[in-house]
Amino acid sequence: MTYRAPVSDILFSLRLAAGTDAGGIYADIAEGVAEQTLNEAAKFAEGALLPLDRIGDRAGVRLADGAVTTAPGWREAYAGWREGGWNALAADPEFGGLGLPALLNAACTEIWNAANISFALCPLLSHGAIEALEAHASASLKETYFARLVSGEWTGTMNLTEPQAGSDLALLRARAERNDDGSYRISGQKIFITYGEHDLADNILHLVLARLPDAPAGVKGISLFLAPKYLPDENGAFTRRNAVRCVGVEHKLGIHASPTCTMAYEDAIGYLIGEEHNGLACMFTMMNNARLNVGLQGVALAERATQASFDYARERKQGRAIGASETSAIIAHPDMRRMLLTMASLTAAARLICFETAASLDRAHRCDDPVQAREADERAGLLTPVAKAFSTDIGNEVTSLAVQVHGGMGYIEETGVAQLMRDARICAIYEGTNGIQAIDLVGRKLPMSGGAAVKREIDDMRAIAQESHYAAVGDAVEAFAAASDYLAGVMKTSPNEALAGATPFLRLFALARGATLLEKAAGAARHAGDPNATRYETLAHFFAKNVAVAAPGLVKMVTEGAQSVTEGGELFAR
Amino acid sequence: MTYRAPVSDILFSLRLAAGTDAGGIYADIAEGVAEQTLNEAAKFAEGALLPLDRIGDRAGVRLADGAVTTAPGWREAYAGWREGGWNALAADPEFGGLGLPALLNAACTEIWNAANISFALCPLLSHGAIEALEAHASASLKETYFARLVSGEWTGTMNLTEPQAGSDLALLRARAERNDDGSYRISGQKIFITYGEHDLADNILHLVLARLPDAPAGVKGISLFLAPKYLPDENGAFTRRNAVRCVGVEHKLGIHASPTCTMAYEDAIGYLIGEEHNGLACMFTMMNNARLNVGLQGVALAERATQASFDYARERKQGRAIGASETSAIIAHPDMRRMLLTMASLTAAARLICFETAASLDRAHRCDDPVQAREADERAGLLTPVAKAFSTDIGNEVTSLAVQVHGGMGYIEETGVAQLMRDARICAIYEGTNGIQAIDLVGRKLPMSGGAAVKREIDDMRAIAQESHYAAVGDAVEAFAAASDYLAGVMKTSPNEALAGATPFLRLFALARGATLLEKAAGAARHAGDPNATRYETLAHFFAKNVAVAAPGLVKMVTEGAQSVTEGGELFAR
Repeated sequence: MTYRAPVSDILFSLRLAAGTDAGGIYADIAEGVAEQTLNEAAKFAEGALLPLDRIGDRAGVRLADGAVTTAPGWREAYAGWREGGWNALAADPEFGGLGLPALLNAACTEIWNAANISFALCPLLSHGAIEALEAHASASLKETYFARLVSGEWTGTMNLTEPQAGSDLALLRARAERNDDGSYRISGQKIFITYGEHDLADNILHLVLARLPDAPAGVKGISLFLAPKYLPDENGAFTRRNAVRCVGVEHKLGIHASPTCTMAYEDAIGYLIGEEHNGLACMFTMMNNARLNVGLQGVALAERATQASFDYARERKQGRAIGASETSAIIAHPDMRRMLLTMASLTAAARLICFETAASLDRAHRCDDPVQAREADERAGLLTPVAKAFSTDIGNEVTSLAVQVHGGMGYIEETGVAQLMRDARICAIYEGTNGIQAIDLVGRKLPMSGGAAVKREIDDMRAIAQESHYAAVGDAVEAFAAASDYLAGVMKTSPNEALAGATPFLRLFALARGATLLEKAAGAARHAGDPNATRYETLAHFFAKNVAVAAPGLVKMVTEGAQSVTEGGELFAR
Repeated sequence: MTYRAPVSDILFSLRLAAGTDAGGIYADIAEGVAEQTLNEAAKFAEGALLPLDRIGDRAGVRLADGAVTTAPGWREAYAGWREGGWNALAADPEFGGLGLPALLNAACTEIWNAANISFALCPLLSHGAIEALEAHASASLKETYFARLVSGEWTGTMNLTEPQAGSDLALLRARAERNDDGSYRISGQKIFITYGEHDLADNILHLVLARLPDAPAGVKGISLFLAPKYLPDENGAFTRRNAVRCVGVEHKLGIHASPTCTMAYEDAIGYLIGEEHNGLACMFTMMNNARLNVGLQGVALAERATQASFDYARERKQGRAIGASETSAIIAHPDMRRMLLTMASLTAAARLICFETAASLDRAHRCDDPVQAREADERAGLLTPVAKAFSTDIGNEVTSLAVQVHGGMGYIEETGVAQLMRDARICAIYEGTNGIQAIDLVGRKLPMSGGAAVKREIDDMRAIAQESHYAAVGDAVEAFAAASDYLAGVMKTSPNEALAGATPFLRLFALARGATLLEKAAGAARHAGDPNATRYETLAHFFAKNVAVAAPGLVKMVTEGAQSVTEGGELFAR
């Protein structure tokens, strides 16, 4: 199964998100850096990562004596990754990074994950560690560890989950005790640690959440530590094995080549990041970006599944189209076209939403105007749960549709689309389940600045809807506005009823935002005479008339459906 | 992962579908046979089939020298199946069957497939062969083969698909030539043959579609043959190996323990079933029942996934519910309740639709009144594509939701719900893809008797909707009525536009029919003081307010969405 990184499409979406800032905060993009970077990224992804995707799925990883061996070719690919400088795209130039904007990094993230999500997870986790260290680590920790993490010589992990503490980190039990020299000793078991152990790099920097003996209960008693796999010896070489070991790897539905490890800490040496008991805040620093990256994984797998399905539907001949005298390629059949347009339009909408989110992160960091920066920060916060949950939901839907388009062949593992469906399924779960994203949207993001953030988003959508040919676009925006108003009120009086509508509300937001962004894209492409114009017009038309039309049903679920959810009588009793 | 066959629920649904016929054509059910049969079926399914489900998933099947070895324990389970008389439930008593109604057989089919779909597929295919032979085989063929197929001593297969001929059987190439003794020689390759080769029974009866040399082109030139794995020798013992061999087994996403075989025929001896060139009509005889059975597989896996999710949500503790002072079981959280109610209500609705379909098949065969019998036959035809496609669509949705409810644990294969999702995924594909079901509904079933069949269905739904508390039920029925009217007209003038709306139309039908059947169930249970009353009231309430509310969006997709599908510009060009 091939994959051609859709550089022209990505570049167009990226410029749309950059908007009028293209010459300002995005001067690096305007200068052609973006196009060149994307073309190089495409080359590496298609040449080095894609061929390993299926090999990795079949071979998985092997654990023996605490050491994890990755699939054949993985080590060479990672060396190529590091040498190509891909690990350093977004990081601070002071430590060897390229300091490229989040938007361009998002575009590359899509490409890596489309080619090989199991591989891409390793740098994804390293980036999380880079962000946390960048924002919170002491100068001495940074000096020792940061540059090698940025270059990719070493990799990073996130150790949050424990068997009893998944979505609820308040239940976390791992312990940390103070050593005399200012370091700490960490003990406990962590599960589901992505690339917790592997053979791609010489050292692994574990970021670990644990509790100090005098820590308050709950999430306010959690501290963040850096526990390297190898500690420095007397000569400053990293040869001393720390007391952290991989004691198991999971047998998973997908992402087989990404080692999901159970890690045992037994008085492992750790160094505090940030302040004691403030670990969760440190984790939150990187949350928006990490969640956006997972959303991009959904876009990535949806894009690849869509490409594979168009290819197959053009090749495979079954049945005669109405009026045809010979057997037709199945792409001629209307029901097949519905599936393909559903896939392509959901993917494009999710990409546009993710890129808007990335652009908001850039504006929050780069805008000189403090009001603009704050509003951009709020917008990133508002859009992030939508980018994460909607993109990964449609990642599931689109990869499953790809199996359907391929018919019986889709169910055979050799074809490859079943792997995309298996791989995609984790994205709606990790980095905060999609239910948690919806709760975050309703409970924390809607009330931001007294509702001003969502109000600005609605105004922006209304302006686009007013210009639209399609009534369904305006209907979707108004349905979202009505649902927002309703929830803002109910959240104060009956939070259970509000939260019962969180998931349909998030979907409603995505449909309104997706429909308006596709309209905007179609209009911009048409106006600029861009070669993508017809494509975006087709997708905007289809999305309005066949996807966004779900909005009136969704607003009813939000405003009238909750009572049947919160009640439930004997069904919820033991 | 446990499974408790929901006998009380199934029995209630079954009596609802039997309705006022309970004492008439269903005298065998009224006499308590149903309850006893279901309790015994539950015992066998839970005791003998369920424990093998995961073993089979892990072990798969092994092909060596043309022989397929099934997973450990499979042979013993099949022997128990045969000895328990389960294979003979629905077949003609003249040949050793029990002659039980299709409705009761449907109930048992759900139970077998919930416990172990890979196992249940073997008898499912045998039943198809039984029906085809019963209706079309000569007396001499029946005498030789039928009783052993009914008892389960031998099993049956369906050989339709070839690499170039899947959904489109007109492209079929397998050849048959006449022998002097009245038999035929069959040559060609068939793919995706379920239980095409295995070690559970001493002989396998292949039903094969092939073309005679003088056959007309297309589907009117296809004949149906019986080609046994072993042919009778001079003593009447079946020892002569026929020239049909398994040359490959597929590596699939799911149903690992069910051998999906590539079969090579090289002048294999076959016997004509029915008349030459009339093979497709013979296959159509059993189509309704086979499609209903696949629909029941969807219900089965959805039921099992729902049970597992309720169990997990009661056990797993994360987060505090609003107002709670301690960590709550996740079932207390509104977003989790939404997922669980979605699963339970979709499953119940799909079961009710499948059972209505089965009851219609019974009435078509058993009613003395020819008008009632014909109308029942039409109703079975109308409901069958909905039973197949909706039930298997929700099979995918509900098993995926089960993974979501289980969070990270759901993604780990050991938990078992990921297997349900993998297994379920085939059901929307085989026995006519769900797209083909939708096309069948719009192209062949809506026009039946000048639209009278769908009119009767709408009348029945309207009568229930008028009594409903929930406006959404009536809205769904009227949306369906409007879409039916629209399609009946457009199918004649612009078939492409009609077929572009086929899939949302089928879903719309299912939502209207599901909502009204749940209402009917709730009303009947309440009226009878049935212990299921509260449960069905809760499900009917939730379904009306959170599932059926999609209907107004779906009718728009049907009536206004087609143009954006049939057009598509450069997207569909090479």
